[in-house]
Amino acid sequence: MNIVDRIAPLVGPAHVLAGEAAAPWARDWTGAYRGEPLAVVRPGSTAEVAEVLRLAHDSRTPVVPASGRTGLTGATHAPGALVLSLDRMNRIRALKPGPRIVVAEAGVILDQLHQAADSVGLQFPLTFGAKGSAMIGGALSTNAGGSNVLRYGSAREQCLGLEVVLADGRVLDLMSELHKDNSGYALRHLFIGAEGSLGIITAAVLKLVPRPRATATAMVAVPSIPAALDLLARLREATGGAVEAFEYMPRSYIEAHLAHFPGAREPFEAPHTHNVMVEVGATAPRDAEPGPDGTVPVVALVEQVLADHMETGQVLDAVVARSESQRREMWARREAAAEITFLKPYFVDTDIAVPLDRLEDFLLTIRRRLAEVDPEATDFLVSHLGDGNIHYTAYPTRGDKAHLAQIRALVDDTAVSLGGSFSAEHGIGQSKLSAMRAHKDPVALEVMRSLKAALDPRGLLNPGKTVPPAGF
Amino acid sequence: MNIVDRIAPLVGPAHVLAGEAAAPWARDWTGAYRGEPLAVVRPGSTAEVAEVLRLAHDSRTPVVPASGRTGLTGATHAPGALVLSLDRMNRIRALKPGPRIVVAEAGVILDQLHQAADSVGLQFPLTFGAKGSAMIGGALSTNAGGSNVLRYGSAREQCLGLEVVLADGRVLDLMSELHKDNSGYALRHLFIGAEGSLGIITAAVLKLVPRPRATATAMVAVPSIPAALDLLARLREATGGAVEAFEYMPRSYIEAHLAHFPGAREPFEAPHTHNVMVEVGATAPRDAEPGPDGTVPVVALVEQVLADHMETGQVLDAVVARSESQRREMWARREAAAEITFLKPYFVDTDIAVPLDRLEDFLLTIRRRLAEVDPEATDFLVSHLGDGNIHYTAYPTRGDKAHLAQIRALVDDTAVSLGGSFSAEHGIGQSKLSAMRAHKDPVALEVMRSLKAALDPRGLLNPGKTVPPAGF
Repeated sequence: MNIVDRIAPLVGPAHVLAGEAAAPWARDWTGAYRGEPLAVVRPGSTAEVAEVLRLAHDSRTPVVPASGRTGLTGATHAPGALVLSLDRMNRIRALKPGPRIVVAEAGVILDQLHQAADSVGLQFPLTFGAKGSAMIGGALSTNAGGSNVLRYGSAREQCLGLEVVLADGRVLDLMSELHKDNSGYALRHLFIGAEGSLGIITAAVLKLVPRPRATATAMVAVPSIPAALDLLARLREATGGAVEAFEYMPRSYIEAHLAHFPGAREPFEAPHTHNVMVEVGATAPRDAEPGPDGTVPVVALVEQVLADHMETGQVLDAVVARSESQRREMWARREAAAEITFLKPYFVDTDIAVPLDRLEDFLLTIRRRLAEVDPEATDFLVSHLGDGNIHYTAYPTRGDKAHLAQIRALVDDTAVSLGGSFSAEHGIGQSKLSAMRAHKDPVALEVMRSLKAALDPRGLLNPGKTVPPAGF
Repeated sequence: MNIVDRIAPLVGPAHVLAGEAAAPWARDWTGAYRGEPLAVVRPGSTAEVAEVLRLAHDSRTPVVPASGRTGLTGATHAPGALVLSLDRMNRIRALKPGPRIVVAEAGVILDQLHQAADSVGLQFPLTFGAKGSAMIGGALSTNAGGSNVLRYGSAREQCLGLEVVLADGRVLDLMSELHKDNSGYALRHLFIGAEGSLGIITAAVLKLVPRPRATATAMVAVPSIPAALDLLARLREATGGAVEAFEYMPRSYIEAHLAHFPGAREPFEAPHTHNVMVEVGATAPRDAEPGPDGTVPVVALVEQVLADHMETGQVLDAVVARSESQRREMWARREAAAEITFLKPYFVDTDIAVPLDRLEDFLLTIRRRLAEVDPEATDFLVSHLGDGNIHYTAYPTRGDKAHLAQIRALVDDTAVSLGGSFSAEHGIGQSKLSAMRAHKDPVALEVMRSLKAALDPRGLLNPGKTVPPAGF
């Protein structure tokens, strides 16, 4: 009996898909990765996941975990493998407003988690463009970031406990609700960001935080990137660390946005080279309650900082949102990034990070190097500036594979040479394996391979992802 | 040639100690762990650490890393082993106020790091009683906590990058200064808290934070533990998360302090069962600059919350420090814990954590269970309440080993049965190996043993610590 026939009675035949029914899993949403899986299995519980993995282990069948499949790196590409979809494991097991904790299964959609937190007056801070489809299992497996990492950290920082099914079907119970727990190795950190290659996350204990009572959102033009970083430092200081978003958009971004969105408007009367969208979330009542004249204190605080910086020339222009619709317009401009990026026929999109004091160096260097190999190439970028995370996209004048690969290597190399990374918040999957090989400390790669061999000796979990094999 | 003679030329004969010269390393500061090491070697650089480990690996010599040796769990106990002391690796390699980063070697004393941060107007937030001797290598290796974890997190949360020498002498370079870096497995988290059993930390990239410009410090009497947690939630909300310390002291603590410190004073006119010391650190200028009447805004804010809670009976009495000397008196009361704990001839001191909504359950249950096995026993505790971390000490009426072990097991068991942990911030070392065996998820122990075998196949790094061997 083949593996698929043996799995069917475990999870119910309706939850094992093959052929036409499995077609959605045969390509990722970017269209870059295609290939038919052996079958798609959709277990409904941790026990079922364990049974499936035990069978796969015995029969040496490769298994690729998948949840919302909104990733950008081909991490759930599964030609010939068994796709283990966590989408039916979508229960919120517990919601505890007192200790501010939610216990969620891997298939809970990010938006669903936001709503659950909201229903008890709290917030699950992790958020990004794909929140309507992305699931918490995938968000943890890629250590996803997003637009308020600055204040709350990445997916890793939201997680107190994990439940993981290992390659051979053993269930690892790390479901702690504790803020302090030093009992042996910090195993949960090994599975977070491992893209399912060391074990499959089935549930997590997550922290909730107070919901902002008011926000101050502004578009700001600055004379330089260092001026932007100075402004960020000052805003964080003035608000006691309440800056949630600090998103950098150069003039080329504003222009692309204007060109592609008919209703889009210029952020300022005059065009500026360096533009930043700032949002401060006020969780303290004193910052949120409007004064007698209707002024919201957190807005006044941000305006004061902007006015101070304007006086010294460190801010050139600024618009503070006066209404929710003005705020939405600012966010829409920022969130258009994904769409704008992919409009041209060929492009090299990246997810790099550099130390904060090397941001300007990076931009100067990469533009010079890009011009050396393709003088007419243009670029485009948007950046979570406060995290040092730049989504830099180059548009070469031709789209042959070798040219695109050369430019990608240039971007990675420039970032790494400045102490940066070729992967900030999207992970490795398949698309960055060559960068891992080229740029990661060789001893780190050896250690990763040792860990993989220790936890998945048969090499069945998400094979060919995350860590490049030795000897290439 | 024996290993010691082979090491001497590598690090210089003056830096290899044996016999009388090694005597300080033959016992820990609590006196509980004694045993002569083979020798003490004090390398001066990462390259020397690598050479020493390579030799030890070839000759199958066990190696116990040590730095400030202020731990409480016997983690640096090294009878017959080579002690590798990091104390000569005490350089601050870089101090960068712009991106708020310090790069420190493992032998840098915590106090020294505080001073370095202070010299550029910033703060390294990790702090605890032993800060004058504890070194950053040990603090990371135990994932140390302390009194402001509430705001800033444990040692793990301060660390962006690590340099680690592996068992066979390979140097693992994870010295990233990035806030976002998803390039493969999160290796640094594996070494943090591993007590040197997977590799030896030689340097780290650490985050710095703004220094508080003013503080509001208060002693508060509350009617119950839930009332204390309500007060904490309210204070965190009102201050935007700026509560740095929230230290619980029951009446028995206050009495022990009064009895043992001649100059000590009652915190309030009347005695209260539940007492809390609160400190809020104001980093924002608007909270720190005194108004025309001399009032410091952060102090006024805390007073307002206390007044509100007094009106509803959720606070019974409160004293806000009016001067630095009053603040020092409050801290001295809290910091006397270590001294008071060890005054009686026998005791069972613990470091447990429970979920915040189980704190009261824990105290009720452990007192009932303690009375069942030793009706005349007394107890004493101090708690980082906001972290759910309780340093619970029982004073039995007799000191035989079996009785002490039984009571320790009761405390651990009570914590674990409420979803808690037997080790919150002190680590495992040797003293909690039996608790690991009794209470840790068996699959988690198996995974830890696999990781240990993968990274230290000869079992030479800090043997007999952290993870109990299989088959007991």
